[in-house]
Amino acid sequence: MALDPSLVDQTSNPIPVPTAPRPDILRCAYMEIVVTDLKKSREFYVDVLGLIVTAEDDETIYLRTFEEFIHHNVVLRQGPVAAAAVFSYRVRTPEDVDKAQAFYEELGCEVRRSKTGFVKGIGDSVRVVDPLGFPVEYFYEVEHVERLTMRYDLFTPGALVKLDHFNQVTPDVPRATRFQESLGFLVTESIQDEKGTIYASWMRRKSTVHDTAMTGGNGPRMHHIAFATHEKHNILAICDNLGARRISDCIERGPGRHGVSNAFYLYLIDPDGHRIEIYTQDYYTGDPDNPEVIWDVHDNQRRDFWGNPVVPSWYTEASLVLDLDGNPQPVVARTEDTELAVTIGADGFSYTRKDDKVEGFKVGTVL
Amino acid sequence: MALDPSLVDQTSNPIPVPTAPRPDILRCAYMEIVVTDLKKSREFYVDVLGLIVTAEDDETIYLRTFEEFIHHNVVLRQGPVAAAAVFSYRVRTPEDVDKAQAFYEELGCEVRRSKTGFVKGIGDSVRVVDPLGFPVEYFYEVEHVERLTMRYDLFTPGALVKLDHFNQVTPDVPRATRFQESLGFLVTESIQDEKGTIYASWMRRKSTVHDTAMTGGNGPRMHHIAFATHEKHNILAICDNLGARRISDCIERGPGRHGVSNAFYLYLIDPDGHRIEIYTQDYYTGDPDNPEVIWDVHDNQRRDFWGNPVVPSWYTEASLVLDLDGNPQPVVARTEDTELAVTIGADGFSYTRKDDKVEGFKVGTVL
Amino acid sequence: MALDPSLVDQTSNPIPVPTAPRPDILRCAYMEIVVTDLKKSREFYVDVLGLIVTAEDDETIYLRTFEEFIHHNVVLRQGPVAAAAVFSYRVRTPEDVDKAQAFYEELGCEVRRSKTGFVKGIGDSVRVVDPLGFPVEYFYEVEHVERLTMRYDLFTPGALVKLDHFNQVTPDVPRATRFQESLGFLVTESIQDEKGTIYASWMRRKSTVHDTAMTGGNGPRMHHIAFATHEKHNILAICDNLGARRISDCIERGPGRHGVSNAFYLYLIDPDGHRIEIYTQDYYTGDPDNPEVIWDVHDNQRRDFWGNPVVPSWYTEASLVLDLDGNPQPVVARTEDTELAVTIGADGFSYTRKDDKVEGFKVGTVL
Amino acid sequence: MALDPSLVDQTSNPIPVPTAPRPDILRCAYMEIVVTDLKKSREFYVDVLGLIVTAEDDETIYLRTFEEFIHHNVVLRQGPVAAAAVFSYRVRTPEDVDKAQAFYEELGCEVRRSKTGFVKGIGDSVRVVDPLGFPVEYFYEVEHVERLTMRYDLFTPGALVKLDHFNQVTPDVPRATRFQESLGFLVTESIQDEKGTIYASWMRRKSTVHDTAMTGGNGPRMHHIAFATHEKHNILAICDNLGARRISDCIERGPGRHGVSNAFYLYLIDPDGHRIEIYTQDYYTGDPDNPEVIWDVHDNQRRDFWGNPVVPSWYTEASLVLDLDGNPQPVVARTEDTELAVTIGADGFSYTRKDDKVEGFKVGTVL
Repeated sequence: MALDPSLVDQTSNPIPVPTAPRPDILRCAYMEIVVTDLKKSREFYVDVLGLIVTAEDDETIYLRTFEEFIHHNVVLRQGPVAAAAVFSYRVRTPEDVDKAQAFYEELGCEVRRSKTGFVKGIGDSVRVVDPLGFPVEYFYEVEHVERLTMRYDLFTPGALVKLDHFNQVTPDVPRATRFQESLGFLVTESIQDEKGTIYASWMRRKSTVHDTAMTGGNGPRMHHIAFATHEKHNILAICDNLGARRISDCIERGPGRHGVSNAFYLYLIDPDGHRIEIYTQDYYTGDPDNPEVIWDVHDNQRRDFWGNPVVPSWYTEASLVLDLDGNPQPVVARTEDTELAVTIGADGFSYTRKDDKVEGFKVGTVL
Repeated sequence: MALDPSLVDQTSNPIPVPTAPRPDILRCAYMEIVVTDLKKSREFYVDVLGLIVTAEDDETIYLRTFEEFIHHNVVLRQGPVAAAAVFSYRVRTPEDVDKAQAFYEELGCEVRRSKTGFVKGIGDSVRVVDPLGFPVEYFYEVEHVERLTMRYDLFTPGALVKLDHFNQVTPDVPRATRFQESLGFLVTESIQDEKGTIYASWMRRKSTVHDTAMTGGNGPRMHHIAFATHEKHNILAICDNLGARRISDCIERGPGRHGVSNAFYLYLIDPDGHRIEIYTQDYYTGDPDNPEVIWDVHDNQRRDFWGNPVVPSWYTEASLVLDLDGNPQPVVARTEDTELAVTIGADGFSYTRKDDKVEGFKVGTVL
Repeated sequence: MALDPSLVDQTSNPIPVPTAPRPDILRCAYMEIVVTDLKKSREFYVDVLGLIVTAEDDETIYLRTFEEFIHHNVVLRQGPVAAAAVFSYRVRTPEDVDKAQAFYEELGCEVRRSKTGFVKGIGDSVRVVDPLGFPVEYFYEVEHVERLTMRYDLFTPGALVKLDHFNQVTPDVPRATRFQESLGFLVTESIQDEKGTIYASWMRRKSTVHDTAMTGGNGPRMHHIAFATHEKHNILAICDNLGARRISDCIERGPGRHGVSNAFYLYLIDPDGHRIEIYTQDYYTGDPDNPEVIWDVHDNQRRDFWGNPVVPSWYTEASLVLDLDGNPQPVVARTEDTELAVTIGADGFSYTRKDDKVEGFKVGTVL
Repeated sequence: MALDPSLVDQTSNPIPVPTAPRPDILRCAYMEIVVTDLKKSREFYVDVLGLIVTAEDDETIYLRTFEEFIHHNVVLRQGPVAAAAVFSYRVRTPEDVDKAQAFYEELGCEVRRSKTGFVKGIGDSVRVVDPLGFPVEYFYEVEHVERLTMRYDLFTPGALVKLDHFNQVTPDVPRATRFQESLGFLVTESIQDEKGTIYASWMRRKSTVHDTAMTGGNGPRMHHIAFATHEKHNILAICDNLGARRISDCIERGPGRHGVSNAFYLYLIDPDGHRIEIYTQDYYTGDPDNPEVIWDVHDNQRRDFWGNPVVPSWYTEASLVLDLDGNPQPVVARTEDTELAVTIGADGFSYTRKDDKVEGFKVGTVL
């Protein structure tokens, strides 16, 4: 997103762009998540959602999706406080790990390097606390495991086939977006208003709508991690499964069609309150001039293309993130308007749909 | 439903069972709906929803679904007040029309007979105001038209292939249910509470979950008319279509999976406020000992199996029904508890899901 | 099907219509199938196809579909020769079992009655060898079992939710069809040629395209038993599962869209050579004047609406059927043209599609 | 694919790798196709398949898919001989067009440059006849058009949303593969035998299984161009549409699940004999160490994962390709074994499935 200069000026405390070359990031690869009851989490992620166990011990479970060939897409780790421990990206070459290290060292961030990897299955890697306060990892070396793409004998009706993206909560979305751009991320979509306030932005390295998104709110926090299914009926099957197990309370929002990204979605809450998105069917974004889509924050089809209301918890709740020592990062309040505040009437979200008429706004129109 | 005698006693003012034999009703066949702006209604039902026009003139449009071979499933008629003019059922033989006439005459209802039919495409028929206040028609003779079952060249992504059922609002559900049973309807599912209050019941003639349902509320009113699609993705495509046309405000509720009936559903509101359900995938009910399913009114998966909240308008809003002269029937208030009241907290439906925990209730358990 | 009188005359050796009233048949209910290796059959029907085991012992396995509430839809019984032991129908009342007995006794058929049922889960029943040579059972009493309609936690991607129909091979289709009509079956579709030869007919009791079909060929033999899935993707998932298990050789034909019935289909061959159809999405046929669809045998879209060729084995192979003592019934050759012969060129079925042009034939046109 | 050196040696007449840097190719972008009856082709591509017309005149039609934002994915041009006129790729920057020019000039290929583009909507481009005899174009500049991603009001049940890939026929697959690798293509899958003969290879630039594939046969010829749908049911809907229009003869093969690529597929033949694939659901391949999948040519699930036979025309028929003056390129015979010959018995493809047992071959195993 070629940010409007006036918006850029608005960004307080811009993060400098290092002179060191940025790493060539391939894609979001895995998230390490601290859970407070590993057994309950295993039931949720393995028995209910059907993620594949690559490895596990008493403290940790390594999970992957059906079409993944690297060791894992999620690490569940038993710990005292529910939190996201790291957002991990794979880079193109071993040398890109060095570049990542230099890039963040120039920024003065805390940086740790492990030649043997911080977790099982991952080799030489660097972990940092980025200028936005998020714990981030970069690695190239990884153990290959059996890709279960065609193991249809193992598929469940709601099989999760890919890790799709992360979503991060940050108080200053333009500042965070500019920082991600300095890392080579390209903005594909965003939500803005007529005053130039940016409420959220979506950014990609791989050729989908995003590898991560920045959602405006008190942060740094982890908003969600998203897994892809093949088709929409797979997401409906997940809902049916949750209903049959009488645990439908873990459905926070959806299923529905996003405006932003065009994807069909569902949001679940895991036993620790971590949010999981199930997602399918966004679109190819791999051309360098891929047209950006800017949504009006007042357009009630931006978050749900069918105009269904967004539950307030979806805007306000998120997971803590940890520093490199495993302590929760302090959360800074968003000072600009929140998306919840500008779109929800005082009388409750239930009337949003009817109050929130948008006339003559075209799909994908630049504001 | 073999009504518990104690429930039956509770029914005030029971409707006597005529000695005249009842007509052999095949199925719900069509609804005549009065609309106040026929052009706008045509846009909704034909251009947006894609129903097939069998015939039309300046005052009336006759519509059918893709797999229908009788003249129509809906008659839209221009009129001064939006209302349901008739709920029409097909009977098995021409003689069953006579039986229907005698049955209602014995009940003292207003009965009219037209040997040439009250509307185009329908022959010898009888129209009555039933003891519940609803305008009902019975016919056998009907013009056959081209069944478009395999005209896939005409199908849209959200093609409506069948009329599935009606849904009626009535203040006294047990009384209405018993009357429908006297007409040969069989109860397949119902919503009750531990005190024996019945909030809604579903009744069938054809081998699906229902041809009509009785929903407790101020009545007689028409709650909705439901059309079937082949698969769930067809319903999602209807939502996408409405989103793309920027008329998603007509989505009142859903899509979702019903608890009752197991069907996947969507509720739309037409330009006059008439409610349309799009519905797919209930189950075979044709055996005489088909097991009845009784849902607890406090089970928050009864109306949406995924626990998504029901918008209050869905409980409170419905269409007027007309008498045989075309005048709106007076509406009588429900005196028993409403489903809305017993399931929704004072602070709004948005928190229903979280407040409304149901422990240990099994799918389809008899209360 | 109001058979053309000239066709009727052609029927050699017509079966008389008994003066005794016919039983009121509800639907096809189950098939008892003799298999030669029960363990291998269990793998196929339970581990691969996912049918639900209601009960089993060393000799017999009782299986049902997800939406069934009667004890079973299939009985697999260990035996010396692979065969269909009985085609079993449920009737509307206990008295209809008496009627069935009288009906067949008047025809001079071999008739056996068991007040406690011939197999587990079924009560008072009658078994006959019908005039066409098929072993047939009628029962009303049956043990109810848990209906798993909403047990989505147990669903596989290819879940079989209903028994849909039987298909029988008989040398003289008009004769067999007329006999089934005398039992109250209604013809919904058929395949004929311009000379009046009838190659196959479909007949229903429940409101679908069929409870059984008659396919012209050497008989009496069992052509297939068909189970329904909810949607088309479920059938594709079954194929994917078979591919992943490296047992795709059991796919005989399909998946594809039928012309006749409009259903999406797949044919599998079980370890004993018994043919199983997986089927979804035919249409409502419950009106007494349901329009019959007659297909031209030269229309290459009749068997596969997409014109894909039918493998010859599908026309020639079928299972033996047993008499009431468990001995295979002798097979009588069809003397009229076979569908294979009139539609397949000498150079192999592979060119059928291109040679077999049909100009100007409309969907569902009466010949 | 790190080609086995022994295979490389086998490659006669290897193409040298230029010292000039290769262009950075983004993706396959469009194909220019010569058709002999533009009106008939328009009916097929626009009226039946539903591609979007960006522009047209008496000689030429420019078509795109729903999710495309560049001017077109197909150019249909009226001409005397049905052929593929150009395979066009988009490159990352304007400078990559210069690089492409230098790359091919060093190879001694015929090269033409047009600063204003060879066709409407495309700017500065270079066209070459590559060393394999194929006409290829590279461009960066292109007119952006409205992306119809969310214009669900325009979607048909079989909406084509993306151009997915090309497929080329060439006599010497290893030679062609090595040349494509010199252009930066990465091999994702291939079909080989135990002697090291390579029958086909799949190569990608974007992060899918392929942008183009090389199929062994008499060449250079164009095997097919492939468009993607969102889901599998969209492909079934295309078949249904063709059946309803009574043009199912244009279905050459499928629908089915590929072994190679894991995609669900359908092959159609356009009015000129050009082959179109409809394709959905392959997998992410964007990591540099994406595991290659090598299929055994004797594995009858490689081309159809369900073991359905491949019609011989699919192996033998393909479209001519043109030189830069519009004359058909001469076709050179493949001298190695053909896939058809090694996998099909003398008695016709119809028995392939049963004859072609493959024991113990695992999905995706390296040979």
